[in-house]
Amino acid sequence: MIKIGIDVMSSDNAPGIDVEGAVLAAREYEHHIVLVGNKDVIEKELEKYRPIPENISIEHASEVIGMHEQPVLSVRRKKNSSIVVLTNLAKEKKVDAIVSAGNTGAMVCAATLKCRLLPGIERAGIGIIMPTLKGTALMIDGGANIDAKPKHLLQYAIMGSAYSEYILNKRLPKVGLLNIGEEESKGTGFLKEAFGLLELSGLNFTGNVEGRDIFIGDCDVIVCDGLVGNVALKVTESIVHAIMEMLKSAFNSSLASKLGAFLSKRALRSLKKKMDSAEYGGAPLLGIDGICIICHGSSNAKAIKNAIRVAGEEVVKNVNRHIVESIS
Amino acid sequence: MIKIGIDVMSSDNAPGIDVEGAVLAAREYEHHIVLVGNKDVIEKELEKYRPIPENISIEHASEVIGMHEQPVLSVRRKKNSSIVVLTNLAKEKKVDAIVSAGNTGAMVCAATLKCRLLPGIERAGIGIIMPTLKGTALMIDGGANIDAKPKHLLQYAIMGSAYSEYILNKRLPKVGLLNIGEEESKGTGFLKEAFGLLELSGLNFTGNVEGRDIFIGDCDVIVCDGLVGNVALKVTESIVHAIMEMLKSAFNSSLASKLGAFLSKRALRSLKKKMDSAEYGGAPLLGIDGICIICHGSSNAKAIKNAIRVAGEEVVKNVNRHIVESIS
Repeated sequence: MIKIGIDVMSSDNAPGIDVEGAVLAAREYEHHIVLVGNKDVIEKELEKYRPIPENISIEHASEVIGMHEQPVLSVRRKKNSSIVVLTNLAKEKKVDAIVSAGNTGAMVCAATLKCRLLPGIERAGIGIIMPTLKGTALMIDGGANIDAKPKHLLQYAIMGSAYSEYILNKRLPKVGLLNIGEEESKGTGFLKEAFGLLELSGLNFTGNVEGRDIFIGDCDVIVCDGLVGNVALKVTESIVHAIMEMLKSAFNSSLASKLGAFLSKRALRSLKKKMDSAEYGGAPLLGIDGICIICHGSSNAKAIKNAIRVAGEEVVKNVNRHIVESIS
Repeated sequence: MIKIGIDVMSSDNAPGIDVEGAVLAAREYEHHIVLVGNKDVIEKELEKYRPIPENISIEHASEVIGMHEQPVLSVRRKKNSSIVVLTNLAKEKKVDAIVSAGNTGAMVCAATLKCRLLPGIERAGIGIIMPTLKGTALMIDGGANIDAKPKHLLQYAIMGSAYSEYILNKRLPKVGLLNIGEEESKGTGFLKEAFGLLELSGLNFTGNVEGRDIFIGDCDVIVCDGLVGNVALKVTESIVHAIMEMLKSAFNSSLASKLGAFLSKRALRSLKKKMDSAEYGGAPLLGIDGICIICHGSSNAKAIKNAIRVAGEEVVKNVNRHIVESIS
């Protein structure tokens, strides 16, 4: 049976949402789920879900790393935090995969320190699944490493391609380098060097892409450094939210538009679903010698449940073996 | 009378759209408008708009710089290109402001070389007006300079604040530094250094902001390097387009939603208008000793017209004087 550990203490709405998501997952999937956090608090939360699924257990962790704590320091100091206890479970192979919606930096740091990196990988990268007009694209790195070197971008491309092929089922995934323009000559020295490495990589590298290409969906893997990727991700999340708000107030502006909104409710709901990151669960932290899914701090229970589903899929499909094969 | 020069040869849909926008502007505003480009081609285009407004004249330029030409080289070699002839008009003070929807890099390069930079400014920056839930925000730099130094970000903040205050009429504009997180400790060494400079700047600096904060609208000026700004801009444009496409197909999915869409047409139109960059015209290139508006390559006639309007406003309000005062 696949065992998945989840930190239920560190998200914006912990522990309620995280425990709820874990219970939903335990009911829907056959995995054994280990809830990591304060035992008393978790037991009290679980009381809401009687009968408690048998495939749930608790691993006690007395501390919590806050969202705004400095990653390296907090991981070093809070040895009993849910994030550190969780990553120890992965390190000791007591679970097959780990999930957290807590402090991303702390999670990246703890997973890298405890699980170590795969051979040939120098930096872990967060893979973000973005909705596109043609399906989805994987953008890597979403913010694990903001001081990337060109060779790290090459490693991201290799990891992203393996993930795209084996988890997202895309054949010969097309890789693009996120840049300021499409021509080979564009960008900083850093990007030009990364371009050269990608050209020689043997991957299906299609050249530079611009921010506007992400949602068109012609690329399966979009490679960038963590700062650019993080801004692109957060801009996307934010504008989807802003447009939904604007739609809401636009629809409330007249009786006709209110009726219109009522009649078009289903259409809007399907749009919302397509744009909803909860559908994709979480973001894989690629490059570590283990399986780790990082969720948005404000994840809802459905997102947590889906992250556990994705973690299980990664275990079954052994994405890391494919990454190691590609690297070497 | 204010004189505004416009390159009508270099946009994606030149010269038709650019001439049309210029004619619309000539009819609506009192500025004298100088169309720069191939005389024969422009005269033929103008035939469509009889009677041709009297406040339009032509400045011949025999060459065109293509969208994908290398900026520095093309500006050096194509001395008779519309972009170079246009910037020469500004340099020689034959026009008060210039507008182009052509190759952004070439425009930045030509304007910087010909008009020179304002005293105290080391790099020009493109100011992008972004729609927010509370109005608009100015993001600078949108891609003029991708190899920025921390002091350039400080200069962007000063220019952006002056523009916000005197052109966008915001009192004590709030300045944010686009970063990966809100805490002061976040980001690369580059961003930390920029943070320190902004803190001591005397501007209304409110600290780091994330990609998600842009559209919330709590900041008036968002400072970033050109690569990050360009990605943020293009991601925004692209996702607005993608959402509109998804809305369209969602609305076409059933009879009820079609009727719903019909009834909510006005609401949707107002949303589209809010998100439509054509409303804002173009992006000011700040820092040069002159007034220059850079439009999107795929601008429509309305965007060109609005860019000419904004150029006129900048002339009247003398934004450069305020920038120079703030810098010193």
